[in-house]
Amino acid sequence: MARKKYVYYFGNGKADGRGNMKDLLGGKGAGLAEMTNLKIPVPAGFTITTEACREYFRNKKEHPPGMWEQVIGNLRKVEKDMGMGFGDPVNPLLVSVRSGAKFSMPGMMDTVLNLGLNETTLKALIKKTGNERFVYDAYRRFIAMFGTIVMDVDRQRFENALGEVKKKKGVHLDTDLTTDDLKNLVEDFKIIYKKVTGEDFPLNPLEQLKKAIDAVFGSWFGDRAVKYRKLHDIHDDLGTACNVQAMVFGNMGENSGTGVGFTRDPSTGEKRFFAEYLINAQGEDVVAGIRTPLHIDELKKRLPKAYNELDKIYKKLEKHYKDMLDIEFTVQEGKLYMLQTRVGKRTAASALKIAIDMVKEKLIDKKTAILRIDPQQIDQLLHPMIDPKAQIKVIAKGLPASPGAAVGKVVFTAEDAERAAERGEKVILVRTETSPEDIGGMHAAQGILTARGGMTSHAAVVARGMGKCCIAGCSEININEAQRYFTVKSMVIKEGDYITLNGTTGEVVLDKAPLIKPELTRDFGTFMKWVDGFRKIGVRANADTHHDAAVARDFGAEGIGLCRTEHMFFEPNRISAMREMILADDKEGRKRALVKLLPIQKGDFIEIFKVMKGLPVTIRLLDPPLHEFLPHTDEELMSFADQMGVSFEKLKERNKSLHEFNPMLGHRGCRLGITYPEIYEMQTQAIMEAACELSSQKVKVIPEIMIPLIGHVNELKMMRELVIRVAGEVQKRYKKKVSYTVGTMIELPRAAITADEIATQADFYSFGTNDLTQTVFGLSRDDAGRFLPYYVEKGILDDDPFITLDQGGTGLMMKIAVEKGRKVKKGLKMGICGEHGGDPKSVDFCYRIGLDYVSCSPYRVPIARLAAAQAFFKEKGAVLAMTTV
Amino acid sequence: MARKKYVYYFGNGKADGRGNMKDLLGGKGAGLAEMTNLKIPVPAGFTITTEACREYFRNKKEHPPGMWEQVIGNLRKVEKDMGMGFGDPVNPLLVSVRSGAKFSMPGMMDTVLNLGLNETTLKALIKKTGNERFVYDAYRRFIAMFGTIVMDVDRQRFENALGEVKKKKGVHLDTDLTTDDLKNLVEDFKIIYKKVTGEDFPLNPLEQLKKAIDAVFGSWFGDRAVKYRKLHDIHDDLGTACNVQAMVFGNMGENSGTGVGFTRDPSTGEKRFFAEYLINAQGEDVVAGIRTPLHIDELKKRLPKAYNELDKIYKKLEKHYKDMLDIEFTVQEGKLYMLQTRVGKRTAASALKIAIDMVKEKLIDKKTAILRIDPQQIDQLLHPMIDPKAQIKVIAKGLPASPGAAVGKVVFTAEDAERAAERGEKVILVRTETSPEDIGGMHAAQGILTARGGMTSHAAVVARGMGKCCIAGCSEININEAQRYFTVKSMVIKEGDYITLNGTTGEVVLDKAPLIKPELTRDFGTFMKWVDGFRKIGVRANADTHHDAAVARDFGAEGIGLCRTEHMFFEPNRISAMREMILADDKEGRKRALVKLLPIQKGDFIEIFKVMKGLPVTIRLLDPPLHEFLPHTDEELMSFADQMGVSFEKLKERNKSLHEFNPMLGHRGCRLGITYPEIYEMQTQAIMEAACELSSQKVKVIPEIMIPLIGHVNELKMMRELVIRVAGEVQKRYKKKVSYTVGTMIELPRAAITADEIATQADFYSFGTNDLTQTVFGLSRDDAGRFLPYYVEKGILDDDPFITLDQGGTGLMMKIAVEKGRKVKKGLKMGICGEHGGDPKSVDFCYRIGLDYVSCSPYRVPIARLAAAQAFFKEKGAVLAMTTV
Repeated sequence: MARKKYVYYFGNGKADGRGNMKDLLGGKGAGLAEMTNLKIPVPAGFTITTEACREYFRNKKEHPPGMWEQVIGNLRKVEKDMGMGFGDPVNPLLVSVRSGAKFSMPGMMDTVLNLGLNETTLKALIKKTGNERFVYDAYRRFIAMFGTIVMDVDRQRFENALGEVKKKKGVHLDTDLTTDDLKNLVEDFKIIYKKVTGEDFPLNPLEQLKKAIDAVFGSWFGDRAVKYRKLHDIHDDLGTACNVQAMVFGNMGENSGTGVGFTRDPSTGEKRFFAEYLINAQGEDVVAGIRTPLHIDELKKRLPKAYNELDKIYKKLEKHYKDMLDIEFTVQEGKLYMLQTRVGKRTAASALKIAIDMVKEKLIDKKTAILRIDPQQIDQLLHPMIDPKAQIKVIAKGLPASPGAAVGKVVFTAEDAERAAERGEKVILVRTETSPEDIGGMHAAQGILTARGGMTSHAAVVARGMGKCCIAGCSEININEAQRYFTVKSMVIKEGDYITLNGTTGEVVLDKAPLIKPELTRDFGTFMKWVDGFRKIGVRANADTHHDAAVARDFGAEGIGLCRTEHMFFEPNRISAMREMILADDKEGRKRALVKLLPIQKGDFIEIFKVMKGLPVTIRLLDPPLHEFLPHTDEELMSFADQMGVSFEKLKERNKSLHEFNPMLGHRGCRLGITYPEIYEMQTQAIMEAACELSSQKVKVIPEIMIPLIGHVNELKMMRELVIRVAGEVQKRYKKKVSYTVGTMIELPRAAITADEIATQADFYSFGTNDLTQTVFGLSRDDAGRFLPYYVEKGILDDDPFITLDQGGTGLMMKIAVEKGRKVKKGLKMGICGEHGGDPKSVDFCYRIGLDYVSCSPYRVPIARLAAAQAFFKEKGAVLAMTTV
Repeated sequence: MARKKYVYYFGNGKADGRGNMKDLLGGKGAGLAEMTNLKIPVPAGFTITTEACREYFRNKKEHPPGMWEQVIGNLRKVEKDMGMGFGDPVNPLLVSVRSGAKFSMPGMMDTVLNLGLNETTLKALIKKTGNERFVYDAYRRFIAMFGTIVMDVDRQRFENALGEVKKKKGVHLDTDLTTDDLKNLVEDFKIIYKKVTGEDFPLNPLEQLKKAIDAVFGSWFGDRAVKYRKLHDIHDDLGTACNVQAMVFGNMGENSGTGVGFTRDPSTGEKRFFAEYLINAQGEDVVAGIRTPLHIDELKKRLPKAYNELDKIYKKLEKHYKDMLDIEFTVQEGKLYMLQTRVGKRTAASALKIAIDMVKEKLIDKKTAILRIDPQQIDQLLHPMIDPKAQIKVIAKGLPASPGAAVGKVVFTAEDAERAAERGEKVILVRTETSPEDIGGMHAAQGILTARGGMTSHAAVVARGMGKCCIAGCSEININEAQRYFTVKSMVIKEGDYITLNGTTGEVVLDKAPLIKPELTRDFGTFMKWVDGFRKIGVRANADTHHDAAVARDFGAEGIGLCRTEHMFFEPNRISAMREMILADDKEGRKRALVKLLPIQKGDFIEIFKVMKGLPVTIRLLDPPLHEFLPHTDEELMSFADQMGVSFEKLKERNKSLHEFNPMLGHRGCRLGITYPEIYEMQTQAIMEAACELSSQKVKVIPEIMIPLIGHVNELKMMRELVIRVAGEVQKRYKKKVSYTVGTMIELPRAAITADEIATQADFYSFGTNDLTQTVFGLSRDDAGRFLPYYVEKGILDDDPFITLDQGGTGLMMKIAVEKGRKVKKGLKMGICGEHGGDPKSVDFCYRIGLDYVSCSPYRVPIARLAAAQAFFKEKGAVLAMTTV
């Protein structure tokens, strides 16, 4: 039986592996193999596979049989190709040992350089290079790196020893130390090593190598690596490869050096070589950031031959990889060596420009361009953001309730916000939680920060609707509204102090941070046109106002998937009539109040229909429990009682009687429509009157009337009859025929599993995955803060199910509903209008289970469009090649 | 093509129909046919089928083709058999017309007697009988009945006219009126008839007949009938049959009369003829209740021949029907006629005795006996009840939270209840809602009445656990605790006033009502033994204390299906430690408090295990959100702060921070166990220490540890590991091996649809159908009061899904879980511990989907056992023949 191949060689223009073998060789190993095969100068070396790593852990940290022999065999080849010997007393080979997983993982083990040095090879190297100082410098670095990285000695101990020597000598830079200083340092370091590890520093190069390889493997389950993987959704069982490579030295004098670069500008995407170079330095000096690197043009001036070769190589590599690359190189005494290449990270703007340019350059096709852009990144292009280069101080973190960034002076009441806006001041409205009373102030503010409430709290929902930055449920802050300040940790932020909100991350930043405005380039338009050419699933927007609708249409929405009618009533001049309706003692009283609401609602629909002309508009009838419309505090109640001319006691009593233990599961949705049919009658009338009037003006209107919170087919049957009756009356009165449909939300488990029954009464289904997730999990989004983050951290759940659809549960429920619904009504139109409609992974899922469209907040429409196109390619078998690789 | 048969004849010892044709002929028609075939003297007649009625409504109230011809044809046969002619001027036939549906429906049309009378037949009848007064009396009755029942004239108009005549004549009884009075009355009645209907009273007998038949059909959709059907779960599309039968007269003198009876005592079940007789009377006189009927022995004395025949007939009928019967008969001039027979209604005690006696008499087999008892009725035997004969005044209605009845003086605080109990007084504790502070008072009270909270509120759950009568959520009452009174409507009930609670119906009764104590007879024991011989599904009880456990075991529970550990902490002397745990700042603080709880909990388990020795005990680890254990009011908080030695502010702050928007969907169940593992560790330790100690005393203990609120397999995996680890530690410490299992509740939709995944980590499943119903429907039981009753009333839902399992939704979800779970783990033990476990329809469903057991409150165990046996027979194809037929 052939022995399993655990080690892949590269060197002398030929490699065992190839660039597409990342799974086995890791990103770094695959890149080195690929470059070698391209005849690019790469120091010889070999890669121990990820499979060896996996078996190492399965075998209780023993090398799989044969691995070590293969390491030795390949080490011999390196010696041969480099013309040097590992541990050789005349011409010694030094190597670097690096981890390298499939995905780049900054949390993993660092590099160990100069491995192979000991008292013997040290002397040989001095003799060979004639540079004693260089060799001792390399040795002390090696001991420190090996000690720190392989043996877990505290790095600070070595740093302290170095610092003491420098202090004693009165010098500032390492380079100012003499050879003798370095010799002494080597001895000091060895003592530190022994003290901590209990062992002498290993002088046998093979022992050094074995320990380093084991340390690379071991680092896969190091704390930082595990945490990083959790954060970036990388599986624990991938394992890491280990690269052992002949050392070249950038620190052998003025004609040596080291550099890093990008083949194009990672910030703007501009097509220019974007690289830096450090003379007489090793890689770690660049990372340390002590010395300022030079522009790459300096290399051109000083070592034109090396530069020209680098120029040719980077172009060759980019052409070969067909992507913008991140490269590392070293020049040893005038000779160029490439040490690494990988796809380069980039900003959203850069990613977009590079993708488009490369299509123009015929390097890639449109499909590749589309698959390369991370939909989540697109968000950066649509909202203002805090300048990533700015130094900022984060003082608290809440829920990222509505994306973007905002700067302003702190105010604590809606009135103050409105007054400040009138004076032309920019403010951030800070509230414990917001209520309908605050809408004016929310409009006037740049952003909203609340101490309580979740991603579906009033503040969050309204802010997202307004496209306004919001951080909700920031429980770290304690607000004293009366005294006009809030505290966070030991800080006190007073009214008028500046803060900055990052609604994309949930971070509250002290003081004014510089913002970058979004700018939609022509490239963006071009790209999105390509995207739409491929995607097969529709994208609509959730929009409650004609303003939102206009934004959505600009962003390419193909209709409104969810128009919530209740938010229209939160406006200050409207809520009174709504409250009058709620407080009415009987049906007649409610009807009197509804008569006042009818023209308002009709006017809203007319505006929305106009904006969306020719496109469908799904209107959801009243959904939230009525108590949400009433004032919360006694003070507000008192003032409202005055206004209504009723007694405070009565109002308070009514408020109390509407109280619910679990409002999420209470008297809401179609349950309101069934017990108070006059409300849905008024709403249907408003929709149909608006439609009839516009229809007379030749505006094409496509209303889709949606009944929320259906659990049983009989509910929908009753409400459908109501809508059809009222719509018929209106059309008769207007002598107009406007076609409309009646459908329902699927947002309760009972609706999902009886979707076959419900289909008999529905023209369309829209999955309300916010509520469906809450009921499938039995999990209140507003209350989940005390344990859900812990669940995600501990890996009990892979993702927050309110952000990314839980495919195994909520998604499974949707799949059941799709199948049952279409079994009864083939081709039944289905969409999603929960917030998952704007999440790329969830869009992909929706496409796969056969939904007709996704609907998301206006600002996420481009994200959803891109995710939809990618879903199409992914289904066709394409591998997503994100730029974050 | 043969014409469809719409009319079935009976008479002269032969009938077209039979007793088992209730679907087509209705109960009455089938009974008449059966009696005729048995050669029992029944006046000839015919039955128009329910199918004719259904077609009548389908045909826009036209008779189906051929029906009327068949009526005429059968009428001719009646004439022939009776030797009289309908409308005949010499020997006229009169008929009765009666509705008769499959199920007895008191809400339907009454009987029209004496149909066929007009000026001509009147005279002939006078001539024939020589009794002018009798004939005019029959005529005036006929006009009034026909007017009222067929033509919808207000009955009061006829009554008033009759009253006026009596007043004018100064007489009290109808029988005191003279023939002339009656003649005048006939004229008066005709005038009333014409005034209201606008038509003359119809003199054509066939027209009278057609109108009466149509009225019978029409009455099927009369308001009362529709309402009755809704209330009794009878389908609208069954239709009613219509019986036309030759009149016989019990009012032709002293040797005539009419009677009703039961073949055995309907109250006690005693084997004796239980009948009454009214001399010289028609059926309606018995119903009117003006004259007091005589004991049936009077008939024996006066008309021994008729009596002897009746005696033979009732015995023959009972032997034939093999059941206790309700019969109606008339004696016309010494000759006996049977007019009706049907299965008689009876009390629970009577039903039980009759079933057992009939098995002993070899009339029926055990299976029939078992199928005849309505499980719901058994409840009557187990709790005290208000004497059904008592005159009571119901002043309010709440939720029937815990069955039984209780009488006592009203008190408003737990302390008052306890003090009164010490004085030996019986009290009813009336609270807005109860909290753990009230436990002592609840124990001391006879019953509990709350103004707020649902069927799962604190009061309801605790009362059911105690087996104590409770009415919850009685929102009609307004409590003024400070002034010590409550108001309801315009009444004021003060402290010390007596009230009576009917926890079975939810009725609050003014004053002391007489109660009947339950008594478990030997018959009961015999019967339940038979039941257990047939049932195939286990019955356990939900019991939280050793007291409950003992009751449950007495009632035949085969284990505990749900032992809620949290209720143990509500006891006043325990809640302090619990609260200390909740208020602790960190894990160490919690652990310190848990150390205090450990011996308490362990002691409880020891007691319960002892009672249940040899039977399994499923213990659910802590489930409710922690804030449920904290005081609610500022006053209670303040006193608690003193006791704890912490500041009121801190306590209030902590209370606030534990507040949840939707506690049902909040931080509870295994979410507590995951975030505060020390709680479940303590509970596991307590269970296993108790088990190990008893095991050393040779007490056989079978603990089943149940993790609540699992939604994802990873949750269960983590908690299972915790339990196994702690259990292992305890067993090692005790050097004892106690076998135990670890399972989970299936109470969230996500758990149900991923039951295949979860099964890998579970030894058993218990369906928590209370919470499952809440989440499947997205419906909070505590908040559903505002619309759920309306839903049931309007037929949107057939039943309250919290009482009877919603088979199409919640049940479907269970079915999915059973299938998925057993696919992975064949024979995985499954039960139900929601309150549906004690509902007969739901027990039947649980049996059909293959559950291993149902678990219900101790007092419902016998009900569940009976329902389980019936489920077995039902599955075998038996038709349930309840005594309510």
